[in-house]
Amino acid sequence: MLYQVFEKLDRLFGFAQAKAHCDIPCGIYDPHQAQIAALTVIRMVDLANDLVKGSTKESLEFHNSLTRYIQVKEEHAEICKREVRVIFGDFIKKEHVEKYPELPSLMHHIMQLGSKARQTAGRETALELLGAVNRFAEIFWEIKGIKTKKVKAPYKPEEEIVYPLL
Amino acid sequence: MLYQVFEKLDRLFGFAQAKAHCDIPCGIYDPHQAQIAALTVIRMVDLANDLVKGSTKESLEFHNSLTRYIQVKEEHAEICKREVRVIFGDFIKKEHVEKYPELPSLMHHIMQLGSKARQTAGRETALELLGAVNRFAEIFWEIKGIKTKKVKAPYKPEEEIVYPLL
Amino acid sequence: MLYQVFEKLDRLFGFAQAKAHCDIPCGIYDPHQAQIAALTVIRMVDLANDLVKGSTKESLEFHNSLTRYIQVKEEHAEICKREVRVIFGDFIKKEHVEKYPELPSLMHHIMQLGSKARQTAGRETALELLGAVNRFAEIFWEIKGIKTKKVKAPYKPEEEIVYPLL
Amino acid sequence: MLYQVFEKLDRLFGFAQAKAHCDIPCGIYDPHQAQIAALTVIRMVDLANDLVKGSTKESLEFHNSLTRYIQVKEEHAEICKREVRVIFGDFIKKEHVEKYPELPSLMHHIMQLGSKARQTAGRETALELLGAVNRFAEIFWEIKGIKTKKVKAPYKPEEEIVYPLL
Amino acid sequence: MLYQVFEKLDRLFGFAQAKAHCDIPCGIYDPHQAQIAALTVIRMVDLANDLVKGSTKESLEFHNSLTRYIQVKEEHAEICKREVRVIFGDFIKKEHVEKYPELPSLMHHIMQLGSKARQTAGRETALELLGAVNRFAEIFWEIKGIKTKKVKAPYKPEEEIVYPLL
Amino acid sequence: MLYQVFEKLDRLFGFAQAKAHCDIPCGIYDPHQAQIAALTVIRMVDLANDLVKGSTKESLEFHNSLTRYIQVKEEHAEICKREVRVIFGDFIKKEHVEKYPELPSLMHHIMQLGSKARQTAGRETALELLGAVNRFAEIFWEIKGIKTKKVKAPYKPEEEIVYPLL
Repeated sequence: MLYQVFEKLDRLFGFAQAKAHCDIPCGIYDPHQAQIAALTVIRMVDLANDLVKGSTKESLEFHNSLTRYIQVKEEHAEICKREVRVIFGDFIKKEHVEKYPELPSLMHHIMQLGSKARQTAGRETALELLGAVNRFAEIFWEIKGIKTKKVKAPYKPEEEIVYPLL
Repeated sequence: MLYQVFEKLDRLFGFAQAKAHCDIPCGIYDPHQAQIAALTVIRMVDLANDLVKGSTKESLEFHNSLTRYIQVKEEHAEICKREVRVIFGDFIKKEHVEKYPELPSLMHHIMQLGSKARQTAGRETALELLGAVNRFAEIFWEIKGIKTKKVKAPYKPEEEIVYPLL
Repeated sequence: MLYQVFEKLDRLFGFAQAKAHCDIPCGIYDPHQAQIAALTVIRMVDLANDLVKGSTKESLEFHNSLTRYIQVKEEHAEICKREVRVIFGDFIKKEHVEKYPELPSLMHHIMQLGSKARQTAGRETALELLGAVNRFAEIFWEIKGIKTKKVKAPYKPEEEIVYPLL
Repeated sequence: MLYQVFEKLDRLFGFAQAKAHCDIPCGIYDPHQAQIAALTVIRMVDLANDLVKGSTKESLEFHNSLTRYIQVKEEHAEICKREVRVIFGDFIKKEHVEKYPELPSLMHHIMQLGSKARQTAGRETALELLGAVNRFAEIFWEIKGIKTKKVKAPYKPEEEIVYPLL
Repeated sequence: MLYQVFEKLDRLFGFAQAKAHCDIPCGIYDPHQAQIAALTVIRMVDLANDLVKGSTKESLEFHNSLTRYIQVKEEHAEICKREVRVIFGDFIKKEHVEKYPELPSLMHHIMQLGSKARQTAGRETALELLGAVNRFAEIFWEIKGIKTKKVKAPYKPEEEIVYPLL
Repeated sequence: MLYQVFEKLDRLFGFAQAKAHCDIPCGIYDPHQAQIAALTVIRMVDLANDLVKGSTKESLEFHNSLTRYIQVKEEHAEICKREVRVIFGDFIKKEHVEKYPELPSLMHHIMQLGSKARQTAGRETALELLGAVNRFAEIFWEIKGIKTKKVKAPYKPEEEIVYPLL
């Protein structure tokens, strides 16, 4: 079913058969920055939650820190979406989607989670986002014929990330 | 066929049944800025082509103008992509895609044309981009139950744009 | 009186007699984006006011949402000012000011209201801003020889906007 | 004549009688950055002209440098306009305009020269821009009751700038 | 001791003997903007502290203003760091460091204070930052062979700034 | 010798003994993005050089592509500098510099090469930049107690990068 959809898409606009097309940089795609961005979102959620549970409400320092955590969460949720969008738009081709039919919905899911991670401040959404980005990274490296493994990130938050065995 | 695809997507991540979700501003979607951006891309292509056909090559003024036209073309091709992406991501829901199954491929086509309009400087690609954005606008207004008509844009380049009859 | 002022201005620096000058895009002026921006400011004020009247004060979600509404209000009040400033600077000529002597003060009023809409969060200022931008749009379309009408915006907030009859 | 104009403006929207209003930072206005920006525009014009007169046309280094000079000229002409606009909008009040009726036209002249300095690459326009900004600075410091003098800038291009005697 | 360090640095990468190198603008270095930025940080801290001491907690206007002060403090602490970094990286040469061996640590100190001024909202840190930037300005003008004096800034906050006697 | 320098620095401003300080995100430091940025600079230099050697000089497509390559080179050389600067400023502490006394000069070298990579378009400088960033990455991972190896980048340009064995 999905094959037919994408075959149809292909005829419509020449779904890139062979050429790598990009808005530049050409050819340099790596999901790493998207993963770091997702980790940053989790980190900001954690810092914000710790702050709110503390006792210095209404102080200027409380507001100064909270505003900054929210601001950085905004930026990095957006960076996460953008990085995945660029790889999906420029690197992923028809034959990839045929091999991994979950790609379009995974992409869309990441976009939605990224938006939700901006609009809310719960850890669950942020973790879901990282999970989806990790799956995207896994597929990405498989396409490039590179094996991956799951490792604990070497920085806070020490959540699991998919890591290519270069 | 497409219904089944999106029903599957729906089960995967709760394809927005009823809630309008957005990264803010909430609810204020209008394809007009995307159309203006596409017109601007055509305009820059025209200005750049006129300049190159002229005789002041190698002069500083030639380079000053050309660099600026290319720069603005870059920005507006990107604005065009972004505006369509936001409407598609935040406003378009499952029932809309069911009624207009061309939407996902149209969205993807606009993204590709937007990139191509950045990487090259031909009028054809820029016109194609406007055409695709106009079709997107047409569907958008139909979804909102508002009739449209085609009019000549009241500014250069005086190409046709889809216009809602408010 | 105002004619004399602008005639004086004209002699001082050659108040653009005939050439359309712009920082590019050349010739593509439309007050629509300024109107959308003003609507967005009103929307953000409404969302922020609703939030503050609610009961979840001191929660992280309260701060997350409020910070985001304020941030977007900032951006769109600034977009509104910029769009009007560009049209006034590039499109409006001496003969236009002669026909519509309210233009300079209207422009200045919009700048002041835009700043005020950033510094405060009341609906009245935001509505005043939209009103002034609507009047500016009305004059703009008259200059181009295009009739307008007032319509309810096809999105929240459903305030009135001036709409060209293309 | 000009007094009547501004009195009329005043009634229309309460031309700030006493309060210093700003989009923040509040109260910190200084034309120095506008002057530096104008000097930078002249510098870029000089560097670009030297390059074009040289012999390495068509080389990659030629294009690399020229593109960068044009880019920086763009930015600084825009910075110059913005700095003057902010001071004029936030600091200049009705009584100032009454004392220095040339202010509105000077402001407008700076905006036009700033745009022209972006669209073209001639030294004359860039020098005119600096001249107008210097006059604006002179009036600014007089309003603040601080004497000024003209000095040669302590960096290239070593053009004259108005300097407050603090 | 410090001479030996920098001589070693010199051999490693040709510590700019004679050419002024810059990322453009070339040659136009002035610590003034860094000083204004530091003054702005102090101003924002003052405004924020006044607001928090006031009585309108929990109102929308309270949040609107506080968020904006914090935002501007962020920007200007960053501008301050950037301006000093550019001058240190582009203008300061080996012979300058030899004459003023405090320069590298002063630079680093400013970077740290700038970060601290973002992460916290106390007046002391902001004043320290201004003090360090003033010392940097003093050395800068001495290198250029221009005497300086300390003056009260002609705007709020009326703290002392180092001022070149041009 | 170097120990004495940094001990002196330490006394001057409390060279962070134990606290990790950052401008946020706190704790998430990784040289990977700096390495990708350096690879991108090399890639843009290669694409630009190929273009200039080709035969379509003076065509609009030639200028369109070249301007874009130069623009992206600008951005990524700056990203490279910024990423290293943040890690050096926030993550590197006194004890690290004691163990790896080359760190400050390496940091400074990267800043200079980054600037040079913007001002010129030769492959040698871009390769030098990557080399310096790779050395910085090596030290970074050693500090974190993680072994590294050198691998060929899994994308163009396929130059060597230092890779942590997580």
